[in-house]
Amino acid sequence: MLTLHYAPRTCALASLIALEESGLGFEVKKVDLAGGAQRSPEYLAINPKGRVPVLVADRGTLTETPAILAYIAQVTPRGRLAPLDDAFAFARMQGFNSYLCSTVHVAHAHGRRGSRWSDDAAAIETMKAKVPENMAECFRLIEETMFTGPWVMGSAYSVADAYLFTIGGWLKGDGVDPARFPRVAEHRARMLQRPAVQRALAREEA
Amino acid sequence: MLTLHYAPRTCALASLIALEESGLGFEVKKVDLAGGAQRSPEYLAINPKGRVPVLVADRGTLTETPAILAYIAQVTPRGRLAPLDDAFAFARMQGFNSYLCSTVHVAHAHGRRGSRWSDDAAAIETMKAKVPENMAECFRLIEETMFTGPWVMGSAYSVADAYLFTIGGWLKGDGVDPARFPRVAEHRARMLQRPAVQRALAREEA
Repeated sequence: MLTLHYAPRTCALASLIALEESGLGFEVKKVDLAGGAQRSPEYLAINPKGRVPVLVADRGTLTETPAILAYIAQVTPRGRLAPLDDAFAFARMQGFNSYLCSTVHVAHAHGRRGSRWSDDAAAIETMKAKVPENMAECFRLIEETMFTGPWVMGSAYSVADAYLFTIGGWLKGDGVDPARFPRVAEHRARMLQRPAVQRALAREEA
Repeated sequence: MLTLHYAPRTCALASLIALEESGLGFEVKKVDLAGGAQRSPEYLAINPKGRVPVLVADRGTLTETPAILAYIAQVTPRGRLAPLDDAFAFARMQGFNSYLCSTVHVAHAHGRRGSRWSDDAAAIETMKAKVPENMAECFRLIEETMFTGPWVMGSAYSVADAYLFTIGGWLKGDGVDPARFPRVAEHRARMLQRPAVQRALAREEA
């Protein structure tokens, strides 16, 4: 059995969608970030980084969204969620997910968690001010140079779609009009029609 | 044939070490970051992100260190550079590499490239000031909770070792004494004895 530790409106949504798509049995445990549950001794014993998501499998814990997504894809029957038999295509997908994780998510985080990188309140405000510009530049690159269509990697749906949908959902809150990126916006509409996405969003609201 | 676009003293060293370990044929092209070559139209045609490393394979380009490392491991004969037949172990390795990419490298980058996240000179100075604390906390977590030994993932060497060696090499320059993390320091000494690491470092200096 797989257990996903997650919190609503975080990058853990990508793993939740991938699990819903996979057909695998799983359960979810909500982590109360606002209440500081991620810093409790119990949670730190599961994930010393104090972050979500964590996927607990029979053999132990997995962290970091790109790694969790690839794992879900690898254990999903018939490998429907990633190009597992093609090392080059798999690396292209992993490169896309890694960009979301290390550049786009980081650009977003400077609007809400600037205290990770500065102790100065005025400095943190200057980071917040730059978030719209940085997020827009990231999504310009995605729209123009990375997105293949109709899905991120082309004709086949993959876990990269779940991840783009998740981070793309942050644009409005980051002060960027999603309509500036029509291909990504169409992708979002296409994702919202998938039953697995609908189930994941309903679970977040529950 | 594989071609690695890299620059000395960047995270591209991890990919260079992995290629040296792989036994695959490859060539390297040095990108003159100080001279701004990464923003030339020629380079942006290869990598619109304007960053290193890029691995050019017959079918196209790969970016992002965790994706490049996994690809090198997958195309290396007899899969000596990653646990390719074990989805859980592979995901553990990818989770480690993703942490280096999205948290540790990002912590380091605030000391040199703060202008990515703020336009304010004083704010950028406050980011620099926090780098030693953040890098030390990252390496405390690695030392105490992630590093298995003698190699990162345990008894088998993997591309995660090349990546840890690369980012661990930044500690001194970031104002952190590497001796604070004895297991990581021993790993570094062990790495320096590997001919592939020696060849990669010699190539950087050439």
